[in-house]
Amino acid sequence: MGLKGKVLVAQGGGPTAVINQSVVGAVLESRKFAEVTDIYGALHGVRGIIDENFLDLTECTTQNLLDVAATPSSGLLSTRDKPDAAYCKKIFEVCRAHDVRYFFYCGGNDSADSCRIVYEEAKAGGYDMQVIHVPKTIDNDLKVTDHCPGFGSAAKYVAQAFAGVNLDNRALPGVYIGVVMGRHAGFLTAASILAKQYADDGPHLIYLPERPLTKDKFLADVQAAYDKYGRCVIAVSEGVVGPSGKAIAAEFTSEKDAHGNVQLSGTGALGDMLSDWVKAGTSIKRVRADTLGYLQRSFLGCVSEVDRREARDVGEKAAQYAIGHGKSGSVSIVRVGNYIVEYKLSELKDVARESVHMPDKYINGEANGVTEAFIDYVRPLVGPLPTHARFSAPKVEKVLNK
Amino acid sequence: MGLKGKVLVAQGGGPTAVINQSVVGAVLESRKFAEVTDIYGALHGVRGIIDENFLDLTECTTQNLLDVAATPSSGLLSTRDKPDAAYCKKIFEVCRAHDVRYFFYCGGNDSADSCRIVYEEAKAGGYDMQVIHVPKTIDNDLKVTDHCPGFGSAAKYVAQAFAGVNLDNRALPGVYIGVVMGRHAGFLTAASILAKQYADDGPHLIYLPERPLTKDKFLADVQAAYDKYGRCVIAVSEGVVGPSGKAIAAEFTSEKDAHGNVQLSGTGALGDMLSDWVKAGTSIKRVRADTLGYLQRSFLGCVSEVDRREARDVGEKAAQYAIGHGKSGSVSIVRVGNYIVEYKLSELKDVARESVHMPDKYINGEANGVTEAFIDYVRPLVGPLPTHARFSAPKVEKVLNK
Repeated sequence: MGLKGKVLVAQGGGPTAVINQSVVGAVLESRKFAEVTDIYGALHGVRGIIDENFLDLTECTTQNLLDVAATPSSGLLSTRDKPDAAYCKKIFEVCRAHDVRYFFYCGGNDSADSCRIVYEEAKAGGYDMQVIHVPKTIDNDLKVTDHCPGFGSAAKYVAQAFAGVNLDNRALPGVYIGVVMGRHAGFLTAASILAKQYADDGPHLIYLPERPLTKDKFLADVQAAYDKYGRCVIAVSEGVVGPSGKAIAAEFTSEKDAHGNVQLSGTGALGDMLSDWVKAGTSIKRVRADTLGYLQRSFLGCVSEVDRREARDVGEKAAQYAIGHGKSGSVSIVRVGNYIVEYKLSELKDVARESVHMPDKYINGEANGVTEAFIDYVRPLVGPLPTHARFSAPKVEKVLNK
Repeated sequence: MGLKGKVLVAQGGGPTAVINQSVVGAVLESRKFAEVTDIYGALHGVRGIIDENFLDLTECTTQNLLDVAATPSSGLLSTRDKPDAAYCKKIFEVCRAHDVRYFFYCGGNDSADSCRIVYEEAKAGGYDMQVIHVPKTIDNDLKVTDHCPGFGSAAKYVAQAFAGVNLDNRALPGVYIGVVMGRHAGFLTAASILAKQYADDGPHLIYLPERPLTKDKFLADVQAAYDKYGRCVIAVSEGVVGPSGKAIAAEFTSEKDAHGNVQLSGTGALGDMLSDWVKAGTSIKRVRADTLGYLQRSFLGCVSEVDRREARDVGEKAAQYAIGHGKSGSVSIVRVGNYIVEYKLSELKDVARESVHMPDKYINGEANGVTEAFIDYVRPLVGPLPTHARFSAPKVEKVLNK
């Protein structure tokens, strides 16, 4: 029997299509433990904790929880706050005042770090509380875990988006540039290739933040692809860097987010700049750029079934580890078969702060595409995709223009 | 028994998610008529006709046709060519050389005009040929018809997109601006409201090309919505105009398309400009803009069932009118019930060239939203949408911050 007390759940950072599955998984599983007196949800993440801005999720019906689980974006709302030690001390004091003994925080590496500090502060304060980091991020850049809940659904959206614009670009040829989210890791941009079927389908070029890009190289690649296919579809990460290692997009905005990072999303500047490069540097006339933007992480109605299931699972495991086993840590996914996963509890410090990049083995030698190994890695996470077809018919012999 | 000869099908203008349904509907229905010797598909629209760039669709299997029907974008590829009389004369001469007696052209008002001229030229040349315009456009701006195939699916995508970004914006509040396609007609932008459920859901403001927008009015609207909701989601048409009647986006690009129109799509300039207006003109810090871009008309896996069915129907009707009844014209959709449609054949001249705007009754008095009448009009075209839910739970009483 674990310690008697309340459960507190919260969500931090950028939303995903399945982040509510994790919260609801944790809530439903927590309800099974007799030692849980109430289940609170903090609104707007850690900010809501220090403001004692709580919903009493004990009062939710099962159907309401299931409805929210199937809803994209953070149902408990989110925050970009990145708490320091003093902030985390306040978190633990609020938890103590409310008799919270189990705290589940769903987020990325910053959120894992908050969990780590809160856990340390509680221990230092002599307060017995289990803290579990529940992983989520569309960037897929967390340490230890094989992949991150939220990524598969975003990857599915990106794959279906590029399959569509590839068909559009085939009908009205030219250069199409699609800018994809991912500040430091290229996983999501690389997923643009997943719905490719025919040998000449786009994306024909993929640029990731893991490899610096020069204007000359970019224009040479585009010209070569255009010469070969009569058109060119390009997937480029919003975080793509120049030779100096500085984000190319950063040259065009001075706005910083709450973490002091340059704003990469929510602007069309990078796409428009690359578009201008092509217009000025080649003779290609029709050049279009779209920035996929916030739809990648929130579009209503595009969820990977595997992602949905795993997001629920990591929430449930959080409750089992904390309440059933009295443990703290970060829930990680381990791939043990093709495709089978298991879950384990990792040390918070091993997941906190730092993030990962795409491994070299997933990036091609020309730094403008991905390898088969990447496709093998990512395909099970996205699951089945809609397919597309071309008319399979012979050409007709000309009569007038022979 | 109609005239013995070939059928020719082609697609023009911007692709849609269901334009291949229409072509395949025409092909499958044409196969039922004994007088049809062969069925050709021209590649890249009217351009492919004068180049005699034909596929022999007689050789397609039924399964291949059904697979292409379910594929977005123009399977026969498209063109922006807007033929004049000389061009149309060439079209008819190629048709005569190949014994084409039935020509079906799937497109918007420009394509209807091409049909009209080709029909006149054939008649003037003493060549007996039926020409049918098969309607399509995501802009929903064709005359006569109640609505246009292609619009319902694009509207569904836009509705799901705004439902998602509304949830995202609720989790991380600020101002979100989404730029939607539609050069002169606001139907698609207005459809952003369709998946709204809760009273405070976005979009909170909708700007259409039918009503001029001033910077002062825009900033006052945004501030008022932000004060009321603590956030603001805005849907704005790419074709929104200033007081002079000139497209606001036009001030930021000089590129013209093949028709001499300013390029509105494929750039983030309008969204970024409106974003800058808010940043400079209010004290709101978090402002994000996305341009929904080409995904609106091509995203793989977002089709309205009603739209899919009607797109197939108009293709089939084209074959019935031309081959079965020996008639030429434009296929129109007539709404005869809630929701029931019938099809009729209209005069080509009544559909060609001019397009329609959103009627006044669909636009609210403040020129920043839509009416219930619009929602009643558009909902059946889009069909059922995914839903979203919030935690239904009481607030917890504060302990420390009372």
